[in-house]
Amino acid sequence: MPRAVDVIRKKRDGGALSPAEIGWMVEGIARGDVADYQWSALLMAIVLRGMDHSETVALTEAMMTSGVVVDLGGIPGPKVDKHSTGGVGDKTSLILAPIAAAAGVSVPMVSGRGLGHTGGTLDKLGSIPGFRVDATLDRYKEILREVGLVMIGQTAEIAPADKFLYALRDATATVESIPLLAASIMSKKLAEGIDGLVLDVKAGDGAFMPRLEDARTLAETMCDVGRSMGKKVVALITRMDQPLGRAVGNAVEVAEGIACLKGEGPDDLMGLSLDLAAEMVRLAGLAPSIEEARAVCERTVDDGSALERFRRLIAAQGGDPNVVDDPGLLPRARRTIELASDRGGRVARLRSRPIGEATMLLGAGRTRVDSDIDPAVGVILHKKVGDLVEPGDSLCSLLVNDKAELERASEMIADAYHIDDDFDEAPAPVVIDRLVAGGVG
Amino acid sequence: MPRAVDVIRKKRDGGALSPAEIGWMVEGIARGDVADYQWSALLMAIVLRGMDHSETVALTEAMMTSGVVVDLGGIPGPKVDKHSTGGVGDKTSLILAPIAAAAGVSVPMVSGRGLGHTGGTLDKLGSIPGFRVDATLDRYKEILREVGLVMIGQTAEIAPADKFLYALRDATATVESIPLLAASIMSKKLAEGIDGLVLDVKAGDGAFMPRLEDARTLAETMCDVGRSMGKKVVALITRMDQPLGRAVGNAVEVAEGIACLKGEGPDDLMGLSLDLAAEMVRLAGLAPSIEEARAVCERTVDDGSALERFRRLIAAQGGDPNVVDDPGLLPRARRTIELASDRGGRVARLRSRPIGEATMLLGAGRTRVDSDIDPAVGVILHKKVGDLVEPGDSLCSLLVNDKAELERASEMIADAYHIDDDFDEAPAPVVIDRLVAGGVG
Repeated sequence: MPRAVDVIRKKRDGGALSPAEIGWMVEGIARGDVADYQWSALLMAIVLRGMDHSETVALTEAMMTSGVVVDLGGIPGPKVDKHSTGGVGDKTSLILAPIAAAAGVSVPMVSGRGLGHTGGTLDKLGSIPGFRVDATLDRYKEILREVGLVMIGQTAEIAPADKFLYALRDATATVESIPLLAASIMSKKLAEGIDGLVLDVKAGDGAFMPRLEDARTLAETMCDVGRSMGKKVVALITRMDQPLGRAVGNAVEVAEGIACLKGEGPDDLMGLSLDLAAEMVRLAGLAPSIEEARAVCERTVDDGSALERFRRLIAAQGGDPNVVDDPGLLPRARRTIELASDRGGRVARLRSRPIGEATMLLGAGRTRVDSDIDPAVGVILHKKVGDLVEPGDSLCSLLVNDKAELERASEMIADAYHIDDDFDEAPAPVVIDRLVAGGVG
Repeated sequence: MPRAVDVIRKKRDGGALSPAEIGWMVEGIARGDVADYQWSALLMAIVLRGMDHSETVALTEAMMTSGVVVDLGGIPGPKVDKHSTGGVGDKTSLILAPIAAAAGVSVPMVSGRGLGHTGGTLDKLGSIPGFRVDATLDRYKEILREVGLVMIGQTAEIAPADKFLYALRDATATVESIPLLAASIMSKKLAEGIDGLVLDVKAGDGAFMPRLEDARTLAETMCDVGRSMGKKVVALITRMDQPLGRAVGNAVEVAEGIACLKGEGPDDLMGLSLDLAAEMVRLAGLAPSIEEARAVCERTVDDGSALERFRRLIAAQGGDPNVVDDPGLLPRARRTIELASDRGGRVARLRSRPIGEATMLLGAGRTRVDSDIDPAVGVILHKKVGDLVEPGDSLCSLLVNDKAELERASEMIADAYHIDDDFDEAPAPVVIDRLVAGGVG
């Protein structure tokens, strides 16, 4: 039986831990014989010394099996989920999950809450009156069987070791480690009982890992872990230089998601949602090529079947399905303030991180894990990269209930816009690269 | 006000912490708003990223001022102590403290217990019937004033932050860091209220830092810290390739110390004790040169005044002073076993670490912080490096009370001896180098 201090020393000195050592340390959390202060020392050693492929797989597996691994065997058809590393205005889950479900994929989605400048799917869904995200695992399976998709929060049964370690990492500056990030994401996702997973790994100033090479390494690591655990995984590396779509907040993002499901959404958001949904359909084996998978997905929007899935999801999870027809039923902010441009030209850059942070200052996000959020507030961007701006044009609308931090938020947004007379490039494509693991391609 | 997670992140990324940040983290232990798991992450980041001179000084000062810094202003004369990084058979404290005191130095010595293969001064003193090492700080000052020396254990008032961090380091594989070691040693020693400090930093297989370059860096770091804090510090770097003297254990080491004070000790031990005592006398300003300081020290042995000091110390601390005249009053093991050599030649090497570990197996040392030790058991080395051995000669005597681990201990000791027909070198000198800080030399 290893001793915690010897395992820590081995990693400190740059050694590779065995699956048995990693398993023993992770199980030690529940056993109670590995202290949190020992884990935090090991986490710091991992951040600074790294972990190789087999260590990362062993950590993923140990965290996954620390709780329930959901058995979806009783539910017919292929189960495929999507995970995004998070961005500003990223509401693709609300769009692609109904699309993939309408195309025949079972989508068992366990999502997180937002923290910091990026929003969370659960918070967005929470803005729909009555919508519940706290289903039991039994009810989760029931909704999945009935509707073909389900969207809940992480339950206490799923990967409790990851929950423990994530809280510890947050308090000890040990979040920024590719193997730890990969293991945390994959342990939770693989515990959902899925057959395949599509990853949206973002790069750019609004992403959790701004540098492209880091995003690529994270994507490769997660693909490798998934393959080693017998799952099909595809990763798209996507641009998070400017916010995705035009709405940033909670209710406003749900409204924009509904618009997309009606075929009326902005091109960048619609395009990425269809790209990701097509990967899910392809991974599920429901189309012979990615082109045909995309055509299938587009059809679910054209014929209204994706929108209908979303309506049924809302009803199944206790929400008011009428929001689909009348987004005015969603919470609305009391005031709308236009932010006018003081100059003309073209939008050359629109940094997403300050937009996310400004939206948080308006009350749409959390500065702490226990902060309350205001579902109604947010930002609607009228001008994005490549758009022409005349002096006095509104760059964006701020939807506000409380002007406490309004001035600072307005300044941050104004600073996020770079307007240039000479700019004439087309906006860069959202998808930068595509990585495949597990024998599909 | 800094946040713990930001301080950890800064060190993780290789930054230098400010004195304010270090002070805030150390004070956070007593305040209760820096958790042990945050400190252990920081400790690991320090082990892997290092600390520069001013960080090490700031950490030393913060740990020192976490408790009482003893005011010895009421006691006349210069106060100088010695600290050894620990070795096998290292009982120089028992010899040099009475010598230095007899030469006019006030020696306020706060010592530690042994752990692992190295013994501790407190455990050795504890083998003297009645001897108490748990005096209050008031009684500590009183004994120092009366006898000119005092030897107690670390009290709860001295550097409590170091006590907390040391326990954490022991459990998280973060002991092996030169700045952390230096700050731990210096914070405790400088809290004693001393004017000067002589360091015995050991190198070789029985030392805590076997490699000479590490020992040298540790010595330099401690000298620099002491100088920055306004103290006179001298460090001798000394060889710990073979045990110091012939006795390894507790009562046997006290007996050998007494023999030295009578001028009857082995040369290596006597020489190093006089070298260190002379440095103390010199630092105290009681002799104009190191040569004259050594002559003063030798005189205290020749005229019996050093032995008399030891007798008075034992009496003042509740022990039986008759052990000085009759070491037979010390605890004695029930059996003596001779370890015979199976070959002839000269002792070419005598590794000290296995000797220390074997002595621990006989019951003389601690495998855990809360282990009991047997004061009577130990080893007497009859053959050391350079000695001629005939087949059948006794290499050493094992003093044992319980033969449970006797076989393993005997094997370890036999393996520690390297007997070679062709060896004809003189034993290397004990003192390898001398470093000076604080304006003496």
